[in-house]
Amino acid sequence: MKRRSRSRSSRRLKVGRAPGTPIFIGEQHLDQVQITAISYGEQAFDEHGIITLAELVRYPLPGRVTWLNVNGLHDAPAIEAIGSQFGLHPLTIEDILNTNQRPKIEEYDRLLYLVLKVVTPNQSPGEIETEQLSLVLGEDFVLSFQERESGVLETVRTRLRNGRGKIRQRGPDYLAYALMDAVIDQYFITLEQFGEFIEELEDTVTAAPERGHIAEIHRLKRNMLTLRRASWPLREELARLEKDDSGLVANGTRIYLRDLYDHTIQIIDSIETNRDILSGMHDIYLSGISNRMTEIMKVLTVIATIFIPLTFIAGVYGMNFEHMPELTWRWGYFAILGFMGTLAAGMLAWFRVQRWI
Amino acid sequence: MKRRSRSRSSRRLKVGRAPGTPIFIGEQHLDQVQITAISYGEQAFDEHGIITLAELVRYPLPGRVTWLNVNGLHDAPAIEAIGSQFGLHPLTIEDILNTNQRPKIEEYDRLLYLVLKVVTPNQSPGEIETEQLSLVLGEDFVLSFQERESGVLETVRTRLRNGRGKIRQRGPDYLAYALMDAVIDQYFITLEQFGEFIEELEDTVTAAPERGHIAEIHRLKRNMLTLRRASWPLREELARLEKDDSGLVANGTRIYLRDLYDHTIQIIDSIETNRDILSGMHDIYLSGISNRMTEIMKVLTVIATIFIPLTFIAGVYGMNFEHMPELTWRWGYFAILGFMGTLAAGMLAWFRVQRWI
Amino acid sequence: MKRRSRSRSSRRLKVGRAPGTPIFIGEQHLDQVQITAISYGEQAFDEHGIITLAELVRYPLPGRVTWLNVNGLHDAPAIEAIGSQFGLHPLTIEDILNTNQRPKIEEYDRLLYLVLKVVTPNQSPGEIETEQLSLVLGEDFVLSFQERESGVLETVRTRLRNGRGKIRQRGPDYLAYALMDAVIDQYFITLEQFGEFIEELEDTVTAAPERGHIAEIHRLKRNMLTLRRASWPLREELARLEKDDSGLVANGTRIYLRDLYDHTIQIIDSIETNRDILSGMHDIYLSGISNRMTEIMKVLTVIATIFIPLTFIAGVYGMNFEHMPELTWRWGYFAILGFMGTLAAGMLAWFRVQRWI
Amino acid sequence: MKRRSRSRSSRRLKVGRAPGTPIFIGEQHLDQVQITAISYGEQAFDEHGIITLAELVRYPLPGRVTWLNVNGLHDAPAIEAIGSQFGLHPLTIEDILNTNQRPKIEEYDRLLYLVLKVVTPNQSPGEIETEQLSLVLGEDFVLSFQERESGVLETVRTRLRNGRGKIRQRGPDYLAYALMDAVIDQYFITLEQFGEFIEELEDTVTAAPERGHIAEIHRLKRNMLTLRRASWPLREELARLEKDDSGLVANGTRIYLRDLYDHTIQIIDSIETNRDILSGMHDIYLSGISNRMTEIMKVLTVIATIFIPLTFIAGVYGMNFEHMPELTWRWGYFAILGFMGTLAAGMLAWFRVQRWI
Amino acid sequence: MKRRSRSRSSRRLKVGRAPGTPIFIGEQHLDQVQITAISYGEQAFDEHGIITLAELVRYPLPGRVTWLNVNGLHDAPAIEAIGSQFGLHPLTIEDILNTNQRPKIEEYDRLLYLVLKVVTPNQSPGEIETEQLSLVLGEDFVLSFQERESGVLETVRTRLRNGRGKIRQRGPDYLAYALMDAVIDQYFITLEQFGEFIEELEDTVTAAPERGHIAEIHRLKRNMLTLRRASWPLREELARLEKDDSGLVANGTRIYLRDLYDHTIQIIDSIETNRDILSGMHDIYLSGISNRMTEIMKVLTVIATIFIPLTFIAGVYGMNFEHMPELTWRWGYFAILGFMGTLAAGMLAWFRVQRWI
Repeated sequence: MKRRSRSRSSRRLKVGRAPGTPIFIGEQHLDQVQITAISYGEQAFDEHGIITLAELVRYPLPGRVTWLNVNGLHDAPAIEAIGSQFGLHPLTIEDILNTNQRPKIEEYDRLLYLVLKVVTPNQSPGEIETEQLSLVLGEDFVLSFQERESGVLETVRTRLRNGRGKIRQRGPDYLAYALMDAVIDQYFITLEQFGEFIEELEDTVTAAPERGHIAEIHRLKRNMLTLRRASWPLREELARLEKDDSGLVANGTRIYLRDLYDHTIQIIDSIETNRDILSGMHDIYLSGISNRMTEIMKVLTVIATIFIPLTFIAGVYGMNFEHMPELTWRWGYFAILGFMGTLAAGMLAWFRVQRWI
Repeated sequence: MKRRSRSRSSRRLKVGRAPGTPIFIGEQHLDQVQITAISYGEQAFDEHGIITLAELVRYPLPGRVTWLNVNGLHDAPAIEAIGSQFGLHPLTIEDILNTNQRPKIEEYDRLLYLVLKVVTPNQSPGEIETEQLSLVLGEDFVLSFQERESGVLETVRTRLRNGRGKIRQRGPDYLAYALMDAVIDQYFITLEQFGEFIEELEDTVTAAPERGHIAEIHRLKRNMLTLRRASWPLREELARLEKDDSGLVANGTRIYLRDLYDHTIQIIDSIETNRDILSGMHDIYLSGISNRMTEIMKVLTVIATIFIPLTFIAGVYGMNFEHMPELTWRWGYFAILGFMGTLAAGMLAWFRVQRWI
Repeated sequence: MKRRSRSRSSRRLKVGRAPGTPIFIGEQHLDQVQITAISYGEQAFDEHGIITLAELVRYPLPGRVTWLNVNGLHDAPAIEAIGSQFGLHPLTIEDILNTNQRPKIEEYDRLLYLVLKVVTPNQSPGEIETEQLSLVLGEDFVLSFQERESGVLETVRTRLRNGRGKIRQRGPDYLAYALMDAVIDQYFITLEQFGEFIEELEDTVTAAPERGHIAEIHRLKRNMLTLRRASWPLREELARLEKDDSGLVANGTRIYLRDLYDHTIQIIDSIETNRDILSGMHDIYLSGISNRMTEIMKVLTVIATIFIPLTFIAGVYGMNFEHMPELTWRWGYFAILGFMGTLAAGMLAWFRVQRWI
Repeated sequence: MKRRSRSRSSRRLKVGRAPGTPIFIGEQHLDQVQITAISYGEQAFDEHGIITLAELVRYPLPGRVTWLNVNGLHDAPAIEAIGSQFGLHPLTIEDILNTNQRPKIEEYDRLLYLVLKVVTPNQSPGEIETEQLSLVLGEDFVLSFQERESGVLETVRTRLRNGRGKIRQRGPDYLAYALMDAVIDQYFITLEQFGEFIEELEDTVTAAPERGHIAEIHRLKRNMLTLRRASWPLREELARLEKDDSGLVANGTRIYLRDLYDHTIQIIDSIETNRDILSGMHDIYLSGISNRMTEIMKVLTVIATIFIPLTFIAGVYGMNFEHMPELTWRWGYFAILGFMGTLAAGMLAWFRVQRWI
Repeated sequence: MKRRSRSRSSRRLKVGRAPGTPIFIGEQHLDQVQITAISYGEQAFDEHGIITLAELVRYPLPGRVTWLNVNGLHDAPAIEAIGSQFGLHPLTIEDILNTNQRPKIEEYDRLLYLVLKVVTPNQSPGEIETEQLSLVLGEDFVLSFQERESGVLETVRTRLRNGRGKIRQRGPDYLAYALMDAVIDQYFITLEQFGEFIEELEDTVTAAPERGHIAEIHRLKRNMLTLRRASWPLREELARLEKDDSGLVANGTRIYLRDLYDHTIQIIDSIETNRDILSGMHDIYLSGISNRMTEIMKVLTVIATIFIPLTFIAGVYGMNFEHMPELTWRWGYFAILGFMGTLAAGMLAWFRVQRWI
């Protein structure tokens, strides 16, 4: 909810300004923009905790792959400085700052600009959080921009530090791939938690549907839509990256991108399955509610149907006519009680035959 | 409503006339057509408040970019005069006057003709107003035609006056882009207001669904459809403009058009989300109504189920049989009252167990 | 209804005959086939009211554009004679006679064959009538075939007579365009009347839904489907005509066809909107019906809930126990009446709090 | 039902056998495979009632078009013998024997293989029967394979015998076209009967919806699906046949195939219309059922609402208080009866105002 | 359920590891990986029950086709060893181990990698089991990897042993085809059992809808979705395999792949039909439930409507007015009983006329 409102309101700031004017659109998370630098080759590896804008001029280091990660986007001039240092187009800088982008890929002269959505499960079950991750892939560097440190990229850092696998022997395109892979793995984890929550809810809805469930189902459906909007454009993005002919993506990396593409298809498949399950749950909910209604009606029918005739009989013998022969019979009262009992039993038996009770 | 009727009725005027006969189809807003002219170069800037048709022959000024804005379309001969001055095709003039066009782009020999819908939120929440904006892009000029001054283009005028950003250094294609950008930013603002209204309505519907909500939801859905019809063709329009090979669009401008294209996709995404939310709201409404029905049924069931047997018992002891031993018992009345109380309490307890009350 | 049945039954006549055997499939409207001829050039104009098959051999007149209009298709040999005079393929003649065609375009060696549906609103509101119009475009002639004079083409005749606009200066392709334009303008008029009827119905359904409305809504939906089937293929037909490379369509005419194409898109848009409105109306109808049910249930609940306990109390004091102290109290009767009144008032107040009444 | 089961069960026979092993999958209709041969040229015409496998070697007759029709597919070796005589691929023979194929076209070296579904209306209304017809088109012959003589092809035989139309002057491609045309004409007849049954059902459902209608509507929907599955692939089949470049289809025949293609589109259109009508009927059914429920509820409400208060009043005066002044009034009884009557009349009037009765 | 959870959980193991690191994702079925080898030529045939990793180096045997089948995927190093022996890409090995792949085809330099889902019906009706089968097609070998021996491939082994059909005369591409054919035949069997279960359920739902049916229908729908996800990508996979230009697929095999493609289309068709039937069953269920509700309401209405007025009459004559002339009439009591009986009979007759009972 809040997120939706925010992302719209923020638009207003932009109206009437020249395109390419960098304005941060998003929530402010950090006091200061944090830049960390990693540069590596097959043998070498250097990591700089937090570097200043002044130190930036050293990068990219020749003969090495440089990865600059920027946490925090609220300081537009800082981002602009980084951008001009690495030759980014003003529109790219604007897109980095506007965290409401759809996932997309843009090809510039000697750069590729990628927007991804980092999706993480929220503490409250069935809720998700989305952050924007911008990647810039150059000839010997990768830049990554996030609103705040999401932890998703940490696994890549660890692999770089350990020199595990082939990551240190390959170029920046492989690094970009590794970062995207880490982001997409998060989708699986999120979907897994989602799936578990959906299963629990389904059990509850099937067993005892309650009033709030309908809103719950629609909340989940909407979150699924958010996930879908985040992952659907990834498909095209990865397909275009794989077929990129700018020379920035090595042939050996393409096969990994194809693999990532397959993962995206699997994610979209999973989302569609969840949407189908939620639609089914909606039907089960409605059916359950309707069943309860029928149960209640049945009780009313049974009680009313049994007692309405009995009450009528009692009413008949409560009439004050002077000449009512039954009233003077010795066993009249008990006979009529017996008749009433028989009638009630007969009706109960009939209901049983009709399978109403 | 009104709008829909009008746009259809106006068609009738056209039937039987030769195509290319300029007839104004729309409401009459102004007494006179107002033409304003702005001409600028990197250093120069001239603005003419309101100019006459006679003064038009001066334009376009050589070596400068000329922007002629025309407010009011009811004076067909005036529009025709402007059209022939700038070499517009008769069909283009007809399209400018017919304000029921779909957004589209048309390529002529040395001109590009663009139709856009300006969407602004209405005072009454959840309502929108659409106006048509026609743009003609020539080699050194841009013409814009509106039914009335909508204020949307004012931001571009201000930027031109201030010489802010790159707008004064670039050609008419960039001006056309800036105008389209201003129009598309309005979509975001409209969607934002819409979104807020939808959220409010959703809260109300979830809390206490009422009879009129269903019509309200459908009104919003229909407005969403209007918005969709206005924005959907923009996608193709911008894609074709970006790929235009008439030489009217400079390569440096294409990247901005691509950016605009991305915005359009975001708008369409937003509209689809709203439509999904409204569909969900419909379900929640129905479910809420059905819940109220069930609540009412439950009360009836509980009251009836408790009192129907009690009334029967009272009826039994109201019978006039001569031989009813209980009637003569000393504490018979109180015993039967106690029995009735116990029965009622037992049934209440049973209902509680069944979770009906 | 009737139309549907007829168009199917007529098929039976065809089964087992050789393709290309001309059989008229449609209703018989006229006693005799009526052929009218118009021939014109920039300066000249000749109109022949009704001509015989024998006179046909004079046409097409060299150096002029000839337009032959044929009303009535029941006389297969006459149509065949016309066809062979102008070099039509047997299948084309069969298609002209079979008035159940979908709109389509067919390219022959030096001819273009076009099928259009003329849609006109019926007297009974919300009903439409469709007639088939076949056009054959040759190098210097246009043939038009209709089941009966529909009046739609009269506006084109008037323009030709008056020499208004460019119609007399242009070739047969422009004439064909003008005829198609006249037909398509009829769609707008039909949709307008439809739209007005839908609005009226919507107001009625929203205010007081009645049993017959559901069938009414479905009748309108079905008519919309008919309209859709008539207009949808027009899109492709016009696109193909615009891109035709047979030399029969002059370049100057293409832009007019493009315009017509835009109109068709607008018509299809309108139809889709109407379909959405009708779907919404269905929901509103169902919701209205369900609301009435709830209203009725509420009244029953209120009345029953109030009187059931009161009746029980009356029953209690109607019991015939010998020892019922209250019965002998001086003001017992009035006390119990007062108690009953208080109970009823309390329950009414509670219902008010629950917003049931 | 039965059909569905059978076509699946038959699959089991195939599992584990080598592809291309000819096994008949279908019901056994005939005692023996019946082969009839027709050979013709422009002047000549020979028809052989039933020929043996041994006589087959004479065919195809040089300089003539040969049409071999095979009824009965249960004798796999016989079909195989025919297949090898005319150079059919083992997979084609397998496909001929497996009568669960989708309509399709397959291009072999000098052969075209076509699968069609012959659809005929069943005696029981709204039911259809489908048979498979396999056509093989060679340079100077056409083979047709059916499970049993369906009568559909008889019309083509008659035309060949009479030498009517152009059929005898043209090649085997035209014969294949004529056979397909005969099959497709059957679709129109089937749809016509279907349409009539749907109209009747619609009238019944609108007038008096009954319990079994829902299953009836779904049965028709399912049959429509069967029809759709049979006709949908025909579209592509005919489009590919028209564009075939194997040299087997003469240019003069293509225009007839185009015509057939148009017919297929019309059939699919018709099916979609019927599906829409059936969906609408489902809504009308539900609405009708719900209306009946409301009617019943109204009667209960009116009766209960009128008598519950009256019964209460009677109960009050049935109380046994000693001091009830009204009881001793001379006209008390009649006054209270009058009051009850007035109350009932008032409530009836109120219901009338509310339009409940 | 379980399957869904598992396949997601297993993802977690992968997060943070380098792509291409082989980890088995799936359940552990076997104690040890079992490798069986078959090598054959037109004349020769050798089968080795279970071979060790050390023996692997002998394969592929020159001049023969080698088929290595691997059961059990939990021993990642073993699979890796096999992979490197046959020149598999690390990503392929990862895909073989990850049994949550979608069906797909991947082209490597001199290898084709295919993923298939083996679908088998479960004992509990309407349930299916899916296993993953990976195929690697090389120039003279085929590798197949399964989690456990599924028995599906046994039929191919038997054909190889018997030398039946052409399988021994053809290359590894034909073997791969034969394996795929065996897998796809399983789909037909599964669908057949499914179809039978659906038919039984449909009969039950139509006859006597019960509360649990809705969940049952949704369970079947979901299983249909699983089947659809397994078979849908097969379509594209087979189309691409047919058009493969790596030289690994001989031209003579393509026609068989085309046949398999047709089977896949038939399977997808069948699945869609089942989904339609299940949707229809949902409607029939809802309608049945609603009918029962109406039945119950009718009984209540009839009973209440008959006895409420009668009870009122009894109440009237139970009033204690002093002056009630009817009470003293000799036959008053019997007259009123007769009147009551007549009234009841009259109402019953009226209900019969209204067709409520």
